Amino acid sequence: MLAEIITIGDEILIGQIVDTNSAWIAQQLNSAGIRVKQISSVSDDRQHILTALKEAQERVDVILITGGLGPTKDDITKKTLAEYFQVGMIENAEALENVKRIFAKYNRPLLEVNRQQALVPENCEVINNHNGTAPGMWFEHQGKVYVSMPGVPFEMMYMVEDQVLPKLKATFKLPFIIHKTILTVGEGESFLAERIADIEDSLPPHIKLAYLPKLGQVRLRLSGYGENQDNLATEVEHYAEQIISSLGTVVVAQEDIALEKALLDKLESSSKTLSVAESCTGGYISHLFTQHPGSSKAFLGGAVSYSNELKESILGVKNETLWQHGAVSEKTATEMVQGALQNFKSDYAIAVTGIAGPGGGTDEKPVGTVWIAVASAAETVVRRFTFGNKRKQNIERTAITALGMLNTLLGNL
Amino acid sequence: MLAEIITIGDEILIGQIVDTNSAWIAQQLNSAGIRVKQISSVSDDRQHILTALKEAQERVDVILITGGLGPTKDDITKKTLAEYFQVGMIENAEALENVKRIFAKYNRPLLEVNRQQALVPENCEVINNHNGTAPGMWFEHQGKVYVSMPGVPFEMMYMVEDQVLPKLKATFKLPFIIHKTILTVGEGESFLAERIADIEDSLPPHIKLAYLPKLGQVRLRLSGYGENQDNLATEVEHYAEQIISSLGTVVVAQEDIALEKALLDKLESSSKTLSVAESCTGGYISHLFTQHPGSSKAFLGGAVSYSNELKESILGVKNETLWQHGAVSEKTATEMVQGALQNFKSDYAIAVTGIAGPGGGTDEKPVGTVWIAVASAAETVVRRFTFGNKRKQNIERTAITALGMLNTLLGNL
Repeated sequence: MLAEIITIGDEILIGQIVDTNSAWIAQQLNSAGIRVKQISSVSDDRQHILTALKEAQERVDVILITGGLGPTKDDITKKTLAEYFQVGMIENAEALENVKRIFAKYNRPLLEVNRQQALVPENCEVINNHNGTAPGMWFEHQGKVYVSMPGVPFEMMYMVEDQVLPKLKATFKLPFIIHKTILTVGEGESFLAERIADIEDSLPPHIKLAYLPKLGQVRLRLSGYGENQDNLATEVEHYAEQIISSLGTVVVAQEDIALEKALLDKLESSSKTLSVAESCTGGYISHLFTQHPGSSKAFLGGAVSYSNELKESILGVKNETLWQHGAVSEKTATEMVQGALQNFKSDYAIAVTGIAGPGGGTDEKPVGTVWIAVASAAETVVRRFTFGNKRKQNIERTAITALGMLNTLLGNL
Repeated sequence: MLAEIITIGDEILIGQIVDTNSAWIAQQLNSAGIRVKQISSVSDDRQHILTALKEAQERVDVILITGGLGPTKDDITKKTLAEYFQVGMIENAEALENVKRIFAKYNRPLLEVNRQQALVPENCEVINNHNGTAPGMWFEHQGKVYVSMPGVPFEMMYMVEDQVLPKLKATFKLPFIIHKTILTVGEGESFLAERIADIEDSLPPHIKLAYLPKLGQVRLRLSGYGENQDNLATEVEHYAEQIISSLGTVVVAQEDIALEKALLDKLESSSKTLSVAESCTGGYISHLFTQHPGSSKAFLGGAVSYSNELKESILGVKNETLWQHGAVSEKTATEMVQGALQNFKSDYAIAVTGIAGPGGGTDEKPVGTVWIAVASAAETVVRRFTFGNKRKQNIERTAITALGMLNTLLGNL
């Protein structure tokens, strides 16, 4: 089963926005067993859209289209689809109700241009848009399925999860696929592969293992394909357990979640708290934690001690430590993490201090030198790293490495 | 002049990575006066790549290809290009030197598979890769230009800026284009358009004005097209000055930079400092500032006071304030911002406290309720906002709104 994603609109082609929709849709389709053959971004141009549709139906079975459904003149997806299918346009009662509902909710008058949002090609089945006025549309034509959706991410996402994926599964009678993700941190692909080589060799042909590496973390994804959902789940779980017990503490989570979310869950389930003291990461570690709902249950907060004065006043780093050893030193990192534990009254703390660059490096401490400390009341671990010379990457790698060290410290908490 | 961007490789098609390369390339091409007609992401499949190339050359003049240049078996871009152009492969001396240089630098033995990185289709002109072993390649074929580059972002970016763009400008004798960006914050597109309607109407046909809105900010971009670079620069500057003086303090910067970077520049040029006290944004505002090189000159740091205890201990918010008014209140925001000024000894401070959601809302203070305070020794401004019910958006909107309020407070600093 092959699919193509077509995004329509100029914002992507002039580089004003990054196309995050397509990556998200591709993930969803892949998880359902539909392979994405091509992603095409085209302009709001009639002939160009017609050509893209024609090319796509020659290579795939399912064509998912986003964008170009707004009420303004430059949005021409609907009428171009009608031309492509050689049908007329009709007003859809359900879509009109939805437009009226949304205008009533915001107490705005319904203009003719808004009413036209309910006009759709007459061969389509309308997919209701709970979050906006532009209806989604499902077409079946000469053995292929076409789905047109708005480009607004959350309108599109809701439609895909709630309506499009279930309908695709039903239409194409896709086999059951069960995924199980194991999140690891701190070891590379080749190390992991060696550790679980025996298990990997013993996998039956209908269970696949994929390594998905990303910035110091590797996700291991087991995918089982089959007819009997219950047996499949048991079988996948069996191999997952073998892998998890072989890998030990590098495993952070047994589901597909963010690393910091896994750590928050671990802390919360043991009623433990965390604080941070950030210098070179400048708030990024705190931001990683606090982007997750409910993070306040385990995360108390912390200091962004960018200046030396703040390292002293908020964290209690000694003035003589800063003078004798410098802000980027084992001793400063240690005092920072202990200051966080003490002043912020948390069970665990993370502290980082380093030279993110591009300026500030010396021969002894080049750009990319970072000290990371993690601590509990019982134990403090401090390590030095030398990352690269790119500021953004140094910030990200420092954060992920610190999270990995915290994971090791938490152990079997 | 039209271009197509083709990305080759499965990572994008399975949704493992978001295609940020294409947006970046599209921006660069647009700034040089080359319009991107289509972006296509295709798999590492010989026939699929051949079809994509054939389709692209039917609609555009320039085809920029990224990815599929690694040393492993699944990277087939080079040999597929040779097949497409019906030429053989030869070893390129310059590319081989580059491979040897990089292996010598990291003190690694040169294997046969690495030596093959220097094999290229015989009709290409090699584009040296300063940051990696895979050479870029420039082809001219039947009046069209094809450029193949690695998919690794910084290798590709360096090639585009340093070599590909200058060569495209020279090959196609593109007209001069001068862009001037004016960054505004706090007012919407329609407000701005009304304020500068007269100026916009008076623009000559060879100078265009674009509104590029993004999260509470609008970039106004003047683009001048012409033959004489000096005259054009003077002319664009003339209209820019008119716009800037009409818009007053909503203008933050006269170049295309990030909002927070513009604020840092303003502070630095007046030798003023800033600190922050973040509750609901959880470190995001600090992260925005500290991602910029040199931010430590103006940004001292701050507190991520997620828990009430930290609001008291680091910022000196009164216990009775928290009890009587709650953490999300005018009084708490005021005490936070004044605590930051005092404890962190900065000239300016930002404080935010709110309910990012999805939990924690009440009838009186629904999810999305945020208090933002900005202050100097002389003045404190506190405002209440009600954003939406999406956590990530609440964090971003709070941050941008706080930056806008700081901009107003800074005034003509």
